Amino acid sequence: MLTYSFADIGSDTLYEHLYKCIKNDILQGVLPPGDKLPSKRTFAKNLNISTITIENAYAQLLAEGYIYSIPKKGYFVADLNRKNQDTAPIRTENIATVANPDIYFADFISNQTNPDNFPFSVWTKLMREIILDKSRELMTNSPCGGIMELRCAIAGHLREFRNMSVSSEQIIIGAGTEYLYGLLIQLLGHNRIYGVEDPGYRKVAQIYRSNQVACHYIPLDENGVTIDSLETNNIDIIHTSVSHHYPTGIITPISRRYELLGWAAKSETRYIIEDDYDSEFRLMGKPIPSLQSIDVMEKVIYMNTFTKSLASTIRVSYMILPNHLLHKFYETLSFYSCTVSNFEQYTLARFIKEGYFEKHINRMRNYYRGQRDLIMQCIQDNPNAVKIRITEEDSGLHFLMHISTDKTDKAIVQEALHQGIRISCLSDYYHNETKENLHTLIINYSNLPPTIMKEAITRLCEAIFR
Amino acid sequence: MLTYSFADIGSDTLYEHLYKCIKNDILQGVLPPGDKLPSKRTFAKNLNISTITIENAYAQLLAEGYIYSIPKKGYFVADLNRKNQDTAPIRTENIATVANPDIYFADFISNQTNPDNFPFSVWTKLMREIILDKSRELMTNSPCGGIMELRCAIAGHLREFRNMSVSSEQIIIGAGTEYLYGLLIQLLGHNRIYGVEDPGYRKVAQIYRSNQVACHYIPLDENGVTIDSLETNNIDIIHTSVSHHYPTGIITPISRRYELLGWAAKSETRYIIEDDYDSEFRLMGKPIPSLQSIDVMEKVIYMNTFTKSLASTIRVSYMILPNHLLHKFYETLSFYSCTVSNFEQYTLARFIKEGYFEKHINRMRNYYRGQRDLIMQCIQDNPNAVKIRITEEDSGLHFLMHISTDKTDKAIVQEALHQGIRISCLSDYYHNETKENLHTLIINYSNLPPTIMKEAITRLCEAIFR
Repeated sequence: MLTYSFADIGSDTLYEHLYKCIKNDILQGVLPPGDKLPSKRTFAKNLNISTITIENAYAQLLAEGYIYSIPKKGYFVADLNRKNQDTAPIRTENIATVANPDIYFADFISNQTNPDNFPFSVWTKLMREIILDKSRELMTNSPCGGIMELRCAIAGHLREFRNMSVSSEQIIIGAGTEYLYGLLIQLLGHNRIYGVEDPGYRKVAQIYRSNQVACHYIPLDENGVTIDSLETNNIDIIHTSVSHHYPTGIITPISRRYELLGWAAKSETRYIIEDDYDSEFRLMGKPIPSLQSIDVMEKVIYMNTFTKSLASTIRVSYMILPNHLLHKFYETLSFYSCTVSNFEQYTLARFIKEGYFEKHINRMRNYYRGQRDLIMQCIQDNPNAVKIRITEEDSGLHFLMHISTDKTDKAIVQEALHQGIRISCLSDYYHNETKENLHTLIINYSNLPPTIMKEAITRLCEAIFR
Repeated sequence: MLTYSFADIGSDTLYEHLYKCIKNDILQGVLPPGDKLPSKRTFAKNLNISTITIENAYAQLLAEGYIYSIPKKGYFVADLNRKNQDTAPIRTENIATVANPDIYFADFISNQTNPDNFPFSVWTKLMREIILDKSRELMTNSPCGGIMELRCAIAGHLREFRNMSVSSEQIIIGAGTEYLYGLLIQLLGHNRIYGVEDPGYRKVAQIYRSNQVACHYIPLDENGVTIDSLETNNIDIIHTSVSHHYPTGIITPISRRYELLGWAAKSETRYIIEDDYDSEFRLMGKPIPSLQSIDVMEKVIYMNTFTKSLASTIRVSYMILPNHLLHKFYETLSFYSCTVSNFEQYTLARFIKEGYFEKHINRMRNYYRGQRDLIMQCIQDNPNAVKIRITEEDSGLHFLMHISTDKTDKAIVQEALHQGIRISCLSDYYHNETKENLHTLIINYSNLPPTIMKEAITRLCEAIFR
């Protein structure tokens, strides 16, 4: 059993001290890769400190990739040499799936759906109807691209909400966007060079790396992906969220969109993957046409998901393939079975077709607006308000909080964690460029219970400004 | 519009003639890759023949890979040059997802579940209970390996039915076995050499090829995979169904199983993927211990699925990783979200835990035994019974029908198709060895309606012996 002395911890909190001790032992090789860390309870008892202290230390080590967790088995020392630079730094996106949500007072990272907001009764009703009406169809294998009813419903939704004209046949259904990326690599080629946005949603790069395809980080300017760096990096396929970049909130203007399409048109191997993950929830401003809808050269693959708009635990995403890729897909990949079960495909199809999805989106948009207004009020009411500047507040389910402070970003995240607040910084989302202290926090407010909003902001400001 | 003359068709049937004309035009380049074939209705009208003739010709071209279909768009000429030898020959497994089931009188290939056999009312009841009891859990992101309740339920099931002792943490849930293969390639390495059984289930090789990893075909002797060819082909990872090989029905004896484990133990990079897809439905004989349960070297990855035992349209499969791979999985692949929705994971967990799955399997086993007895009776009663020999009748959901005839296997499949009977031959499942006329048909009888059994056998015998 590990033992550490807490006699001389200086100004560190208990959890910081413990975190540093373990981290040091991992870096020194005292704790070799694969070693199991003591259970929180035993460790706490042995060190005579509270389990919450252990939890905080473990959460920090987990967030920084020094340890990993296996559900019900515990925490283990990571192999730092195995990691390439992609997986080593703070892996904030990963924590949601492994960390225990009960240890946080408030979570500004999680994308989970508040159970109060999911239309359970409608969903149950539709599910029962489907089972009564469609027992034969429920047992008939789905085409590899997905059930036609669902694809028609999605095409209708896109026509109405996004002013996109796509035929249902172009739509391919899959169990989550991550799965569809895997399919796209097989469709577009393992020998292509893929590009992801820097800063950006890190998982996309992880998927490319895990599939052993070349992947480069493309810097953004204030209008999004820069054409020059696409050219200098010899990118074939660029993954981009032009309508609302995460986490910067950049909306790529129409001129840059045409430049992107122009870039893609120059070579047969070039494509743009347009990830339109949160288009349903833009709170203000006029909608901007998707790249897909202004693409006449069959260069854009559009992707969207119901994990944001309905529930993160319902794994249904889709992509829209241009015609020539659709043909290639059916010719080369149609041996794959559709990964979404018929029950959910038919239920979701009816949910959309009968107008429930539209109602749900409208209701959620109001809810999110209320959430945003409430959290803005809490920030304004805080004594530290003058040291805070908010941007991108109209752009969806999160905004950016710029803060004036001498503390490092890392210190802020750690102190917030100690206050029970889980948060990430814009600097965490950069890969190539080192942006250590941007002093910009990402506030995902969508599913924070309104009742704890004020206290959450108070604690966050404590962590930042105390 | 294509026009063909039916003036001089010799002894060919109309559909055979049409099939040959189109095939010839494709091979000659008259019909270039990507060209759309006329719709069945228009084509039939133009040629003044019935649409069923067109359907039969298209189905044959589809089965042989000369054309492909896009749902609701129609049929298109395949690019024969693009295909490697893996996808070019008869792709019987693929047809199920694209062909119209209504055009067959009886289907001896399909794995679809008869809607009468799915426990809809129990499923609905459990789904409602889950929604009432677990709204919070339903909205909480699943760990990447799957919901713990489901993994515990599966571990319990395996203990009881398969005498396997696995911990729930070793189980990884995914949306279908095909998806899990993709994960395994990322886990075990793109630079490894994978082996698949020859003959065997062709989809596995397609997945390896599509992911651009080296894949060799390993011949079987009467005891299954041969160790010599694993060595000579430098295989790292062999995919095998030792408990019941499809389609030959070979059950690998315990001595060969130990040889396989011995082979795997010789190198750090070697593993065995044990696909135990139909272990629940062996109708007779004593159960044989799984490879996984006699593996003490952490060399076996066990896979199984609910698509066979529950419904082909419920996409839930799982794999059991040995401990050291489990660690590697959580360290390198835990950024992936679980691909099965929480609704189905919780419902299935309760379905297993409350004993419904056991009841379902027992009921289905009786049903399949009844199906088998009925079809055997129909065969015995047929005037051609003396020219038919049945093997592997006790081994699950299909058997092999050996026939004495001068016709080629291909001619039999074609004539059966003309009789409205969809069937495949053992020779279709060979890759390296050319086994053109084994005169062995694979009879998947599991979901054939009992009412049409007699007529189906009569028509099949017509096709074979007429």
